Amino acid sequence: MDKYSPLGPDELGPSPNIRLEEGSPAVTILDQTLLPNRTEHLTLSGARELHEAIYSLRVRGAPAIGIFAAYAIYVLSARSAETEFEPFYAEFLENKAYLDSSRPTAVNLKKQLDRMDALALKLRALPIPEILRELRGEAFAIHREDIAMCKAISEFGLELIRDGDGILTHCNAGPLATSRYGTGLGTILLAQERGIKLRAYCDETRPLLQGARLTTYELYNAGVDTTLICDNMASIVMREGRINAVFVGCDRVARNGDTANKIGTSGAAILAKHYGVPFYVFCPSSTIDPDCATGAEIKIELREPSEIKEKFFAEPVALEGVKCYNPAFDVTDNELITAIVTERGVCRAPYTESLRALYE
Amino acid sequence: MDKYSPLGPDELGPSPNIRLEEGSPAVTILDQTLLPNRTEHLTLSGARELHEAIYSLRVRGAPAIGIFAAYAIYVLSARSAETEFEPFYAEFLENKAYLDSSRPTAVNLKKQLDRMDALALKLRALPIPEILRELRGEAFAIHREDIAMCKAISEFGLELIRDGDGILTHCNAGPLATSRYGTGLGTILLAQERGIKLRAYCDETRPLLQGARLTTYELYNAGVDTTLICDNMASIVMREGRINAVFVGCDRVARNGDTANKIGTSGAAILAKHYGVPFYVFCPSSTIDPDCATGAEIKIELREPSEIKEKFFAEPVALEGVKCYNPAFDVTDNELITAIVTERGVCRAPYTESLRALYE
Repeated sequence: MDKYSPLGPDELGPSPNIRLEEGSPAVTILDQTLLPNRTEHLTLSGARELHEAIYSLRVRGAPAIGIFAAYAIYVLSARSAETEFEPFYAEFLENKAYLDSSRPTAVNLKKQLDRMDALALKLRALPIPEILRELRGEAFAIHREDIAMCKAISEFGLELIRDGDGILTHCNAGPLATSRYGTGLGTILLAQERGIKLRAYCDETRPLLQGARLTTYELYNAGVDTTLICDNMASIVMREGRINAVFVGCDRVARNGDTANKIGTSGAAILAKHYGVPFYVFCPSSTIDPDCATGAEIKIELREPSEIKEKFFAEPVALEGVKCYNPAFDVTDNELITAIVTERGVCRAPYTESLRALYE
Repeated sequence: MDKYSPLGPDELGPSPNIRLEEGSPAVTILDQTLLPNRTEHLTLSGARELHEAIYSLRVRGAPAIGIFAAYAIYVLSARSAETEFEPFYAEFLENKAYLDSSRPTAVNLKKQLDRMDALALKLRALPIPEILRELRGEAFAIHREDIAMCKAISEFGLELIRDGDGILTHCNAGPLATSRYGTGLGTILLAQERGIKLRAYCDETRPLLQGARLTTYELYNAGVDTTLICDNMASIVMREGRINAVFVGCDRVARNGDTANKIGTSGAAILAKHYGVPFYVFCPSSTIDPDCATGAEIKIELREPSEIKEKFFAEPVALEGVKCYNPAFDVTDNELITAIVTERGVCRAPYTESLRALYE
């Protein structure tokens, strides 16, 4: 395969969240802030609007931000008027720093910009058009690698399900947050492509409603049998035998398998254990943090009360003086997790050994 | 105590949800549909507006509806122009049937109207002014009995807590739904009166947000240390050791202790068991249904998708085609319940025996 060829529709899937425009270089994204009520695409080529797209969460999800940033730095480089490497690279670094400042804590953003930077520097002896050609290819490679990784995770996931199974999802770990298949939703989407019918029950995922707004949008549009529930209905759907497995993505996995993910994940895992339903975590192996021994080391981000009381609502749902406790994530103990599914394989307890074995 | 005296402020508490107006007979209610953003009272005396107040949930909660209906039928009777019993009673029955039609499935509504009816019929030989005096006294008695029952439940609850405890609540079982103290919230409010400080964590209780809109309103206004959380945060607040007990009301208790209550209650009970936190159900003993052997016999009401996707939101949070599963209640297995607290005492497992003993 020519590594420089653009990604075709088959690779990107039916409604790609990120796509490079050729000719007059630009990046087209699906504006996630308008979902699910309005499906609108934006074509961006200026530094300020590319930066704003990340800052304002028009493109979100760590892998998706990384892919977008790689395309963005290529687009800005291709639009440079410079013909000599030194001024060209000075402008590159300026754009890189500006894009990187859009969400300072997003690891993938910095990682992919560093990868593009390293390539540009390595090719400094080449003419600018050749450097641009290589940068474009590298952005495609980053995008293609993410698709391949999501697909590999999803293939492993297929071994865990049967036709007709009911799957409970929490938050959003689908194509919008990554590319093409996603992590937690990848198996459901790949199953749908292969004619294996699953029934998805999606936790709405308060307070930011990513399950309602994004997960049901992705699964319903892909033709999956999709049912939205409130988070507190997970117990009754398990009790009624509607759920054969729980699928979630994750933000960070400790060496012992303790897993940080969207708030509410640990509750879903405890319910699953109570009802004897398997609980699966899907993630790239890069999510496993070798510097983190257990979940106790993972610091939980606390967010604004307004997300609980005001955001999305027509009027506030509690008095101004009422306090809110709003942790964005929680930690699920490894003993509650049936398996952690990565692109390198399926890990089961004891996780300290099975996760380490991924790298041996 | 003169059974005909009106309920004083001490009995009704600081912000009564229902109060009889003397002089020109009328009922004043706190309009619950406007909470928590607007605290407005309505004074009602016409049959149509009294009916509408129940129908439109301006007054809600089974005990509160029963008290309101008793006052309402008294007010309509006191405003009658009839001076002979036959036409007076014909009008009484007409008003009774009309009020009863406002929420056909509300058991307390029919029960209290029947009680007022039986009294009127028993006193048929007396002059109308004497009958009215007795009806007014009966309405006060109904109200006073509910206050006494809630207080008795709450006194038993005080034996279960210690100063400084953190209490998780789900849905709303407070004064707004009953009178004065409430059931599930009664212990917290009585503790506050007695200088015992509790920390309340209130599940918002999706989809209708009774926890956010009503429970935090009641507890915050009573001066209780009140924190609102999303339902899916119950796991993390228990994990962090913030919760010493879970307090809920209930709609129906089977003979074996299985308990039907607002959707999400069973999930909270499973989390409590996982974390070793006691889980208490508070209810009048009349909630125990001797005709219901186990929770399997309790049919769960399914409600509209719009409650999940649209109600309260500025715009829909999921696509129109996405299905919703919206059960209003769930059943908590008796094995998950530490104790059931009634006005007659505290019942513990085995419930088939302890609940039966309440009536022996």
